[in-house]
Amino acid sequence: MQKIQIERTTAPKAKPADESKLGFGKIFTDHMYVMEYNPEQGWHDPKIMPYQPIVLDPSAMVFHYGQEMFEGMKAYKCADGRIRLFRPNKNIERANNSNRRLCIPEIPADDFLNAIKTLVAVDADWIPSRPGTSLYIRPFVIATDPFLGVRPSNTYKFIIILSPVGAYYESGLDPVKIWIEDDYVRAVRGGIGEAKTGGNYVASLAAQVKAHDEGYSQVLWLDGVERKYIEEVGAMNIFFKINGTVVTPMLNGSILPGVTRASCIDLCKHWGLPVEERRISVDELVEAARTGALEECWGSGTAAVISPVGALRYENEVMQIKDGGIGEFSQKLYDTVTGIQTGKVEDTLGWTVEVTPLEK
Amino acid sequence: MQKIQIERTTAPKAKPADESKLGFGKIFTDHMYVMEYNPEQGWHDPKIMPYQPIVLDPSAMVFHYGQEMFEGMKAYKCADGRIRLFRPNKNIERANNSNRRLCIPEIPADDFLNAIKTLVAVDADWIPSRPGTSLYIRPFVIATDPFLGVRPSNTYKFIIILSPVGAYYESGLDPVKIWIEDDYVRAVRGGIGEAKTGGNYVASLAAQVKAHDEGYSQVLWLDGVERKYIEEVGAMNIFFKINGTVVTPMLNGSILPGVTRASCIDLCKHWGLPVEERRISVDELVEAARTGALEECWGSGTAAVISPVGALRYENEVMQIKDGGIGEFSQKLYDTVTGIQTGKVEDTLGWTVEVTPLEK
Repeated sequence: MQKIQIERTTAPKAKPADESKLGFGKIFTDHMYVMEYNPEQGWHDPKIMPYQPIVLDPSAMVFHYGQEMFEGMKAYKCADGRIRLFRPNKNIERANNSNRRLCIPEIPADDFLNAIKTLVAVDADWIPSRPGTSLYIRPFVIATDPFLGVRPSNTYKFIIILSPVGAYYESGLDPVKIWIEDDYVRAVRGGIGEAKTGGNYVASLAAQVKAHDEGYSQVLWLDGVERKYIEEVGAMNIFFKINGTVVTPMLNGSILPGVTRASCIDLCKHWGLPVEERRISVDELVEAARTGALEECWGSGTAAVISPVGALRYENEVMQIKDGGIGEFSQKLYDTVTGIQTGKVEDTLGWTVEVTPLEK
Repeated sequence: MQKIQIERTTAPKAKPADESKLGFGKIFTDHMYVMEYNPEQGWHDPKIMPYQPIVLDPSAMVFHYGQEMFEGMKAYKCADGRIRLFRPNKNIERANNSNRRLCIPEIPADDFLNAIKTLVAVDADWIPSRPGTSLYIRPFVIATDPFLGVRPSNTYKFIIILSPVGAYYESGLDPVKIWIEDDYVRAVRGGIGEAKTGGNYVASLAAQVKAHDEGYSQVLWLDGVERKYIEEVGAMNIFFKINGTVVTPMLNGSILPGVTRASCIDLCKHWGLPVEERRISVDELVEAARTGALEECWGSGTAAVISPVGALRYENEVMQIKDGGIGEFSQKLYDTVTGIQTGKVEDTLGWTVEVTPLEK
């Protein structure tokens, strides 16, 4: 494992005064982590330095050919005063899966975890403690060759930045309304849908704008081949409880393999509840909603953790779920996952990793 | 039209001494163009300034969500000493089509053209004159909001950089070998395939690496739905001459509408040759190659202009075209298009736009 050189800021920023107004992804901490890659040295020279702008040649490949990968995870200040990460190795494994698909060199897992733990430790004072808040961790890689030709870059920067973030739902869980999109497509089998990379997100914007205009907060995507099977929400995976069975789309290469998704499945199995990862057609969903077999629906993701879905719209049909309220099982999942993350529920599954603050 | 403020460099770089060794996209000129966007002022404050690094917050949205658009075109120093652009308004129109799909604000066409003409005029000394060389023009837009949430950015930079580039084929036209990919997918109907944006290029890298390893220089993509119909080469559109008819895949939403593609079609029509824009299955292609009906194949794109294809490989079948040599019609197209671009062939179709060098 490589030793990280630490240069502390001499001009610490003021921390947010009101933890009820953090929002998401707008405020950044005092430090950032940067590691460079070139073919001769591989990943080398890891540093923690004062948070500062990135300076790149205008021809840097990331600006032109989209060779970029990111991850998202959170650190929590727990009731017992300790700092915990939630399943960081799942994110690191996924990051390297994304890297392989995007022809970005893999990052050694131990250096990756050490980078996260050390940076969070350096900026531990920035972790908010108000219920529902956390420190969002954004690792990302960008291609930096100053070259205008299409090929994998030879040089990269791996950067981690931190953002104290508010509760996703300030006044408790609030069901969302979701638009099922049948015109635009996010990703397709054989493409880059299972990699966490910018191209999938820019592809989602036009449909997101359309859904917002119609009064829906998020888009549920259908598969790109038949436009028939449920895929994911873009910022979340999707779950349904149908006739007592929990059902979620199987990982098919175009869906992001969410860490919260995996945790929901693991918890259901742990509780002895039937779970099916399979293809779900939108017709099956509409039928289940009509007959009342569709008991609950929720999204899972790092930002919202568990997000109950109150309504789904497909073409001209609006499916109300739980009369727009919160399902008992969604609430139980939310309480359990956030409980484990924040140390209020015993971590019998060994999911959390503790971070020890650094002495100054 | 907005007035461009011009700040000239006080430290001009040395120009490339040997125009036979320019390569592609590695050398940049003395100046760049930058225009900023925000919701209050729209696109504003256009400047030409010394070529310099871009400085962005690490949370700038382009690094995370891929909201970026680019174009590619060329300026030529012609035999008569004049400087000409080739159909710049086609690129500008396509750029704004890309912008709409990517939720980037459109750029006024007259400001866009004025930006290109003025920047090329300022750096006119950088246009190489050796046959086959040109000044490559790379306009691009990047999303700059310092924000980690998925939505269209509120702020953008529109930048143009210039690169003197060599002849694509130093020793004259040289047929390429192309790999028809049946595993990876570049883009799908409903996605962003017809926009010129990073996400389509990063998606192509893994297949490109695979093709290179097999001894093929480029990848020909099949459609993402049926994996059956010919799409494009990624850096080029593709044309076939089958039984005397020129055939090219129709624009279906997942193919880039190439300016050189349009010019090939226009020229064929001008010459009275039958042209079909339609779906072409890979099976039809294999059959045409087997029976000898496949007379020629070439790619069209800004970088190579016209690129004869000597061999196509699909699964285990290698289709030799013209015994790996150059087809007469490919050669005629190349001579005509490059002739019009460089002023050697009369521009009866009104495709070129002259640039007048600026006094210093």
